[in-house]
Amino acid sequence: MVKCTICGVREAFYARLYSGEKLCAKCFLESIEYKVRATIAKHKMFEFNDRIAVAVSGGKDSVSLLHILAKIEKDFPRASLNAIIVDEGIKGYRDEAIEIAAENSAKHGVTYTVISFKELYGFTLDEIAEITKSGDLTPCSYCGVLRRKALNMVAKRSGATKIATAHNLDDEIQTFMLNIIHGDPMRIARTGPTYNDEEPWFIPRVKPLCEVLEKEITLYAYLKGIRFQESPCPYASAALRNDVRNALNRLEEKHPGIKYTIYGSTEKIREAIRERKPKIHLNQCAVCGEPTTGEICQACQLLQKINVH
Amino acid sequence: MVKCTICGVREAFYARLYSGEKLCAKCFLESIEYKVRATIAKHKMFEFNDRIAVAVSGGKDSVSLLHILAKIEKDFPRASLNAIIVDEGIKGYRDEAIEIAAENSAKHGVTYTVISFKELYGFTLDEIAEITKSGDLTPCSYCGVLRRKALNMVAKRSGATKIATAHNLDDEIQTFMLNIIHGDPMRIARTGPTYNDEEPWFIPRVKPLCEVLEKEITLYAYLKGIRFQESPCPYASAALRNDVRNALNRLEEKHPGIKYTIYGSTEKIREAIRERKPKIHLNQCAVCGEPTTGEICQACQLLQKINVH
Repeated sequence: MVKCTICGVREAFYARLYSGEKLCAKCFLESIEYKVRATIAKHKMFEFNDRIAVAVSGGKDSVSLLHILAKIEKDFPRASLNAIIVDEGIKGYRDEAIEIAAENSAKHGVTYTVISFKELYGFTLDEIAEITKSGDLTPCSYCGVLRRKALNMVAKRSGATKIATAHNLDDEIQTFMLNIIHGDPMRIARTGPTYNDEEPWFIPRVKPLCEVLEKEITLYAYLKGIRFQESPCPYASAALRNDVRNALNRLEEKHPGIKYTIYGSTEKIREAIRERKPKIHLNQCAVCGEPTTGEICQACQLLQKINVH
Repeated sequence: MVKCTICGVREAFYARLYSGEKLCAKCFLESIEYKVRATIAKHKMFEFNDRIAVAVSGGKDSVSLLHILAKIEKDFPRASLNAIIVDEGIKGYRDEAIEIAAENSAKHGVTYTVISFKELYGFTLDEIAEITKSGDLTPCSYCGVLRRKALNMVAKRSGATKIATAHNLDDEIQTFMLNIIHGDPMRIARTGPTYNDEEPWFIPRVKPLCEVLEKEITLYAYLKGIRFQESPCPYASAALRNDVRNALNRLEEKHPGIKYTIYGSTEKIREAIRERKPKIHLNQCAVCGEPTTGEICQACQLLQKINVH
């Protein structure tokens, strides 16, 4: 029997290759929660009295995040959590996810708000996909932009002072690589563990799971018996992101630890890019008032596209 | 018969996927030379009267670079070219490369200087490999550092005002990725098409092939009938670089053009990093006087390691 490197008592079940540790289930779970607490502290993600809007999709990452934040929040009686569940309107997929997200929120005594594309924009994603199917954009292009806007709007309405999303370390380095691949590295300035545009109308964003590997957050969810949606979105294409994910996974497999060193580099590069003048500040969209780098936000531009179809 | 996109007359033999062009041999060769000229102009790599030291290993890149620079130099009578051939001392491998490098230099009427590890450092690479085989460094670690130092020393001795190396676009983006993977992205400041430390004793470096794909410079060498060494170095390991190369090749195959967009991003990130204060300036090594970021250059540190073995 191989014993756990941390407690030295229980049997190890998981080999953490990048650190050389062999961990029992209990120490593994604690290590994840500890890491999330450390990430939150290091990046000063929260104030003691924050009203935190957590974006919950029902997937492993967001449901685990909700679980961990609910646990941490117990120590901060003046802080509050509210789950925001965006219903894009995807038949046979979203319904289950919403039910799971709602169930998990209720389990932790967290209030939740469901907001749908249909009520916000007049169309479900299924309808948008049908309307725009001859166009040059995939449903994912619409969904990502419209979901972010929905999240912002609801967070603002509910008086949230922070928006927490469940991006994990793999998501972060994939996004970094995609920005590099798209030839648009200046966007890296607006990614990262925290982002605050320092405008009074902008709700700062935080990513408490950004230093946890996707593999380990999945394991966390399974071990905790957390119910989450496992089936992928029927529209999921993201061919390039999948290729980048595979490339990074192959590299990590052969050279354990690479994902963390890449992550460290993204932080340093982000810092260098953020220090540059002139900084890119966000404006308020001339149509809807939500944050945008231009005059009219991407969401309003896309909605215009749908409406003229 | 598919006709060449450029001349519209000759038969195309090569499909340049990233641009959609189909090219005949003549137009392909011209496009490479044109691209090198454009890179040189864009980055103001040379003055009309530069004394250019070209690092020639005998491989496809360096011999092609020599070929192209010799052609360009004809228009600049006050400029001069000198090939620098570093003999690391690798039995059964380097001898052929040196013969090829010397032959190509002579063919273009370019003077050349051969400098060996043995005369500079007292050891051949074979001897270093033998001496250090129980150590933690590969022969490649010694070779890279000592070769760069040798190049610098000979260039300085011969009064060179520029050092040209034959790094192609693939080399550049691999190095970028490796700096990211090693968690050391600030090194990116000292990479790129040109690097000048702006110290009087520092010889600026230029990379005229940095915007040409490895695949295309290989094709150039074959089509031109240029003789180059095809066998790989017997010590070549560079496991991680090979993995990165494979990952990038796979991505490029599925998404043609990715290497160029990645390259574009490396340029923007380098600019952001170079603009940061405080800048890292190079010092002169306390032992040998060559450039170093610390007090004693890496080469002298490695030589010390060899000598105490």
